[in-house]
Amino acid sequence: MKSVRTFEDLGFAKGEPHRITRQGFPEAIFCPGKKTEHILSIFGVLAQGPGPVLATRATPQVARALLKHYPKARYYPEARLVVMNPKKVRMKTKVFVLTAGTADLPVAEEAAITAEALGCRIERLFDVGVAGIHRLLKFRKRLKEAGVAIVCAGMDGALPSVVGGLVSCPVVAVPTSIGYGAHFKGLAPLLTMLNSCAANVSVVNIDNGFGAGVIASLIAK
Amino acid sequence: MKSVRTFEDLGFAKGEPHRITRQGFPEAIFCPGKKTEHILSIFGVLAQGPGPVLATRATPQVARALLKHYPKARYYPEARLVVMNPKKVRMKTKVFVLTAGTADLPVAEEAAITAEALGCRIERLFDVGVAGIHRLLKFRKRLKEAGVAIVCAGMDGALPSVVGGLVSCPVVAVPTSIGYGAHFKGLAPLLTMLNSCAANVSVVNIDNGFGAGVIASLIAK
Amino acid sequence: MKSVRTFEDLGFAKGEPHRITRQGFPEAIFCPGKKTEHILSIFGVLAQGPGPVLATRATPQVARALLKHYPKARYYPEARLVVMNPKKVRMKTKVFVLTAGTADLPVAEEAAITAEALGCRIERLFDVGVAGIHRLLKFRKRLKEAGVAIVCAGMDGALPSVVGGLVSCPVVAVPTSIGYGAHFKGLAPLLTMLNSCAANVSVVNIDNGFGAGVIASLIAK
Amino acid sequence: MKSVRTFEDLGFAKGEPHRITRQGFPEAIFCPGKKTEHILSIFGVLAQGPGPVLATRATPQVARALLKHYPKARYYPEARLVVMNPKKVRMKTKVFVLTAGTADLPVAEEAAITAEALGCRIERLFDVGVAGIHRLLKFRKRLKEAGVAIVCAGMDGALPSVVGGLVSCPVVAVPTSIGYGAHFKGLAPLLTMLNSCAANVSVVNIDNGFGAGVIASLIAK
Amino acid sequence: MKSVRTFEDLGFAKGEPHRITRQGFPEAIFCPGKKTEHILSIFGVLAQGPGPVLATRATPQVARALLKHYPKARYYPEARLVVMNPKKVRMKTKVFVLTAGTADLPVAEEAAITAEALGCRIERLFDVGVAGIHRLLKFRKRLKEAGVAIVCAGMDGALPSVVGGLVSCPVVAVPTSIGYGAHFKGLAPLLTMLNSCAANVSVVNIDNGFGAGVIASLIAK
Amino acid sequence: MKSVRTFEDLGFAKGEPHRITRQGFPEAIFCPGKKTEHILSIFGVLAQGPGPVLATRATPQVARALLKHYPKARYYPEARLVVMNPKKVRMKTKVFVLTAGTADLPVAEEAAITAEALGCRIERLFDVGVAGIHRLLKFRKRLKEAGVAIVCAGMDGALPSVVGGLVSCPVVAVPTSIGYGAHFKGLAPLLTMLNSCAANVSVVNIDNGFGAGVIASLIAK
Amino acid sequence: MKSVRTFEDLGFAKGEPHRITRQGFPEAIFCPGKKTEHILSIFGVLAQGPGPVLATRATPQVARALLKHYPKARYYPEARLVVMNPKKVRMKTKVFVLTAGTADLPVAEEAAITAEALGCRIERLFDVGVAGIHRLLKFRKRLKEAGVAIVCAGMDGALPSVVGGLVSCPVVAVPTSIGYGAHFKGLAPLLTMLNSCAANVSVVNIDNGFGAGVIASLIAK
Amino acid sequence: MKSVRTFEDLGFAKGEPHRITRQGFPEAIFCPGKKTEHILSIFGVLAQGPGPVLATRATPQVARALLKHYPKARYYPEARLVVMNPKKVRMKTKVFVLTAGTADLPVAEEAAITAEALGCRIERLFDVGVAGIHRLLKFRKRLKEAGVAIVCAGMDGALPSVVGGLVSCPVVAVPTSIGYGAHFKGLAPLLTMLNSCAANVSVVNIDNGFGAGVIASLIAK
Repeated sequence: MKSVRTFEDLGFAKGEPHRITRQGFPEAIFCPGKKTEHILSIFGVLAQGPGPVLATRATPQVARALLKHYPKARYYPEARLVVMNPKKVRMKTKVFVLTAGTADLPVAEEAAITAEALGCRIERLFDVGVAGIHRLLKFRKRLKEAGVAIVCAGMDGALPSVVGGLVSCPVVAVPTSIGYGAHFKGLAPLLTMLNSCAANVSVVNIDNGFGAGVIASLIAK
Repeated sequence: MKSVRTFEDLGFAKGEPHRITRQGFPEAIFCPGKKTEHILSIFGVLAQGPGPVLATRATPQVARALLKHYPKARYYPEARLVVMNPKKVRMKTKVFVLTAGTADLPVAEEAAITAEALGCRIERLFDVGVAGIHRLLKFRKRLKEAGVAIVCAGMDGALPSVVGGLVSCPVVAVPTSIGYGAHFKGLAPLLTMLNSCAANVSVVNIDNGFGAGVIASLIAK
Repeated sequence: MKSVRTFEDLGFAKGEPHRITRQGFPEAIFCPGKKTEHILSIFGVLAQGPGPVLATRATPQVARALLKHYPKARYYPEARLVVMNPKKVRMKTKVFVLTAGTADLPVAEEAAITAEALGCRIERLFDVGVAGIHRLLKFRKRLKEAGVAIVCAGMDGALPSVVGGLVSCPVVAVPTSIGYGAHFKGLAPLLTMLNSCAANVSVVNIDNGFGAGVIASLIAK
Repeated sequence: MKSVRTFEDLGFAKGEPHRITRQGFPEAIFCPGKKTEHILSIFGVLAQGPGPVLATRATPQVARALLKHYPKARYYPEARLVVMNPKKVRMKTKVFVLTAGTADLPVAEEAAITAEALGCRIERLFDVGVAGIHRLLKFRKRLKEAGVAIVCAGMDGALPSVVGGLVSCPVVAVPTSIGYGAHFKGLAPLLTMLNSCAANVSVVNIDNGFGAGVIASLIAK
Repeated sequence: MKSVRTFEDLGFAKGEPHRITRQGFPEAIFCPGKKTEHILSIFGVLAQGPGPVLATRATPQVARALLKHYPKARYYPEARLVVMNPKKVRMKTKVFVLTAGTADLPVAEEAAITAEALGCRIERLFDVGVAGIHRLLKFRKRLKEAGVAIVCAGMDGALPSVVGGLVSCPVVAVPTSIGYGAHFKGLAPLLTMLNSCAANVSVVNIDNGFGAGVIASLIAK
Repeated sequence: MKSVRTFEDLGFAKGEPHRITRQGFPEAIFCPGKKTEHILSIFGVLAQGPGPVLATRATPQVARALLKHYPKARYYPEARLVVMNPKKVRMKTKVFVLTAGTADLPVAEEAAITAEALGCRIERLFDVGVAGIHRLLKFRKRLKEAGVAIVCAGMDGALPSVVGGLVSCPVVAVPTSIGYGAHFKGLAPLLTMLNSCAANVSVVNIDNGFGAGVIASLIAK
Repeated sequence: MKSVRTFEDLGFAKGEPHRITRQGFPEAIFCPGKKTEHILSIFGVLAQGPGPVLATRATPQVARALLKHYPKARYYPEARLVVMNPKKVRMKTKVFVLTAGTADLPVAEEAAITAEALGCRIERLFDVGVAGIHRLLKFRKRLKEAGVAIVCAGMDGALPSVVGGLVSCPVVAVPTSIGYGAHFKGLAPLLTMLNSCAANVSVVNIDNGFGAGVIASLIAK
Repeated sequence: MKSVRTFEDLGFAKGEPHRITRQGFPEAIFCPGKKTEHILSIFGVLAQGPGPVLATRATPQVARALLKHYPKARYYPEARLVVMNPKKVRMKTKVFVLTAGTADLPVAEEAAITAEALGCRIERLFDVGVAGIHRLLKFRKRLKEAGVAIVCAGMDGALPSVVGGLVSCPVVAVPTSIGYGAHFKGLAPLLTMLNSCAANVSVVNIDNGFGAGVIASLIAK
């Protein structure tokens, strides 16, 4: 037990390659604000572990540097994710990833690719926002199969409440920073979701697709 | 023309009994923060005009004082409104008043009674919040008849966006102060509504049922 | 009826070309955060419908790409709008578009062009802010002809309240992000307008000229 | 299927007694802002369903009224909950309910009793806030058994991050309104939790013990 | 010179009876949060000076205690002010005190009585808010005589901008806490006034009638 | 009288060259968000009046364009002001302009040059912030000569309170956007100044040196 | 070592009587939101330790209950503190406690009594706010003796910056909730203090006199 | 004594080279918003004093200019600090500098280099955030040696609370602007730290490593 708790001390960082063994999900590298050389070093430490290695919010430059050193890694530009050693086996439970609009895609893809790397089976339903509710209702039956639903929405952030009333599973709501004016970079949908009248909705940080993917995978287990 | 612009100067207040002739809607008395004797005086001035006289947010005490002096007036306790000389004739256009929950009733009734006093034909649809979307969808057909829709919602404030996508008329959204925690006394639904992804939604102040009623009556004309 | 509710599923987006038939106003493309190729595809889907096709907040680059594929479309650079197939017939009701200052023009033009594309007759009154009230008062008579008034203002956002007291129609107030310091990118005029002491004022999101245009066109009908 | 979607229309409210069949959790009555007579009527409607009936934030007065009409119901004063017909069978998965301080108890109990009424097996760990981390660490082993962890914290709201790093299951964080000054009635711990550096933490509204209990029970299934 | 800078040390407070000699306006006692016995002691110290002694936000209880000890003092209940030894001579310059509504009176009276105690000649214009601009315009000529204008407004706070454009003197704007919803206890009119498009407007704290009165008196000199 | 109220209508703008006759201070052009050609046109209109013409927040580009057309104009790069036809005569009253730090200079210079253009006699005291109070106190005597004091401060915004206690004239406080972190672009010193414990302090918008200069000149008269 | 880390588990709370041995300051009971019986139990547990036992924000009722059970305890009503077994020995270092106004006394006394109970030598300087800077400067020499300075201020919160520039020791700034309007219950002075231009100022939560007392005692050691 | 209080007046700035003699810490130059030539002049003035000269937030350009004129100075790019004449002697007391993550390094280094320049003995512990609490606990023993602890954290800002519970010295918490979404550029960890449940934690402004370093050095003395 003790051994998996060990971390490697790089001075500027302490990497924990075996977090997935200990916690069921891996440590990931949040790239913004870190130097590329630091990212490379930490990636190397994490790659010593058994499970998927993820670098989030990776710019193309960072991704290029990582792929050069780690040719097995793969870059998902829309999701801004670099992934290495994803899980191969798929769990039975279906994780639905929904978006209210087209501009929510990067966040939704971050969630979907993360959950997939952790072994989830993903169904995508994009651009089904509530101002044209018939688009969502067309998929009402398929939604019944959801074991978890990740719902990404900017603007008014109303979609998770409606989805929450249609499914019989937990809903992980992800406010996105898509909007303008009184949207305040995601504050509006964040508040909407926290005040959701559907009791099965919990919320993660604005644009936090990675967190939503991790939580969905833990629930799916 | 000039004559109807005249106001009566009470020193502490300047009442305009003929605003309805000039603008199509009457001056109303917003009671909080005013002394009962002041309210009585202003009510007297406004009663000299042709149209409905309204006192909003009237406590039972204020209402009692008004009804004692103006026996023709009527008190609507749920709406906290005192109304005298409402319009008798009903316009053809139907004004729908919807609420997301039961606790939004006082605001919805303020809107409904105001619009009614100004000649509107009202349809009420209460407790049709989006977390149980089938409740709203059951009335989808009836909603097609709406010439204007007033939608009152607290909590996540998501209802106006959904209604906005179902009707072919303007939607006046009224955020209510019903909620708790990150609701911040109505700020959450206010932001939701301002960011509505339905383009036909405009918004009034938190709990401002009176304003919504006035606007609906002007649109219905 | 059912047929017009159908949408076309592009995977990343679900376009609804017949929304104008169903709701009286068309779906529009909000360009920011969308890839140009996505915008082109959605524009193509929406162009299958009967009515005006609009792309809002279009940069010159996006506009060039659209006009290349859709030579019938027209770009309004000040309004940042691309419009195709606008309505030809003009409604009788006059829609007034007012601004407090010169810098509010882009938002005002977005509202005006949108309403015009939907068949409205527009009157423009620009730079009539309240700190020189005689500028506005000079147009007092003309204002009486308004069937709807769209009022765009940044800074203190005081103009809608004054206009609201001069007209006998609904006022759609549009706060703009023009200002500095304690303006907080439009928050100041937004709050001013929500607290307007004129009862006929409703509000849309900061800089939301498109929404104001849609609502005005629905009221004008 | 259709039948369980039916709701009963009381005019002021629309109750859905079979939501638990449809969604796996029941509709609950949020008492504040509702008249006692309304609460009684809705409780009656919900009691027609198969599952637990819950009234949240019930004052002693409301509870008395409910227990008089529904003697089978039980009042939990600390949790401010009235519960009738709780589930008898217990699921295997253990739901841990932790608090940072003593004053977080009412929220924690609301979560615990709710989850219990929905069939969960509950373990309570109270007053284990991070300023005396050894209190929490003493229970480190027991925490490994958690299938879900509900963590309630006011003040700095730091506990969910620490717990999130110790368990291998989803953490549902509940900010509480316990604190003063720059706490802003729960805003401080809410922001802390949304920014948690532990990826398995999702958040519900301030003081929303009921929502946390529902989500935990859905995950436990 | 030095002597007038001396203060009297009461331990819990340090009173400066000669501030008016040094600065042209007196120290005043802001009563809330102070014990009545403390208020009495400080009042006694300040009464040793030459000029007016003022206690602001005085409840009737506090006022009664002060008038019992200092029979020469006078209580203005609407303004919540206790004043002793006001200046007798009146300056030539006229100070106008305007309010947008009736509920702004307490703040306006605090400003007026303060300025009067400091030797100003006061003109009151109450309830001339911008939603009925003809009420204000009727007094346009009289406004030309103003040497300073104090403008108190709650709700949208738009009045100072309009007055600022009509006068040729400085305008001291006082936001009041009168309003509801998105008014946030005076924040809305405060922001409006800070963003005033009239360049001659400066602002004091919400409800700060006393400060406005002091500043007006200094300008009037 | 009437003639000076006339404005020139440019369509996109309405210029009032005689505002200085009517109000004692001129209309100025706030440059940001306006096209250079528009600025040139408005400048031309305003130049028809008798008094100083000012363009604020002028970039070097805008200034170059203005000086090319109006060679009599002068650019003050630190103040970002273009001024033409400043008043020649100096009033007796001294206007002091103080800053807390070196970085507040641009705002202070905007205030100083504006006031100077309107006929004020200016004294500058820069970098006398309260954390080294002896720097300010060294000028205590000179401060006694002030007829008005403009105090510009970012960071903690504490300087106006101290100056307010040293002078016997009105203080116009200008919060600046200089600071970082919890400064929130000037919000911190703005709140400090609004809550100043010196009663002779009024406040203008963040970085609004122009407004402060206008107000000071009106007081100095 | 291990033994002093032990805590006593009361179920609803976990008390640590030996925290003072381990950390140099004791655990204290923050009374609001706790039942009196709970407070009594925790007080009993903490009383088993060697050092001072403190209950903060104690109402007179709570204090009475505590003193009945623990006659050795003493109640300081102004500070709202109950203290038992204070340290007897006094450290050499002088801790200065300053307030800007009279209404800051409760917070200042909480800080002073706490520090005293922990062995500090206290000097009090009350009502020396910056709007009458000569009051503070009179004590300039005495301030040189300070080993730590606790500065409590509401309103504009400017005092810590000035004190910070006069002393050669750390300053612990305590914003108080004394003020009104744009003070927002202490937010204004909190921001002022965080942005202090004196580099030796650190800040604790609004009204947190206890924390300031603890930190001062740790520094004094 | 008097002589060391003297400052040098550069007009745009007033430098105080002997502040370290008077206060125990030097005046530093906060570079942003200052012209390079101004920075050079002030640096020159401060270099006349006995102690360390510091320029904070220096860009490489500014640093280059300084080092060219003052070859004895040294640039620390990560800390963005230019330092000349640091203290040589080291105090006994150990100052610990901790970070929650890798991206907090620039702020931590600013604190560490500042404290070092003022004679402190520094121990660095980086990337020990609470989501992997075992990383911090590994250093539990070493932490006991701390005389002061500076704790830098972005994201949830939870680290200072945990450290506060492990040490027996004052903790200076520095919120960093590292994070996204509901982090609001450091507001989230700032609030967390102000509400810390550890009583020995005080807080400085977001990213204010310099202030933390100064305070730590004063405590270490």
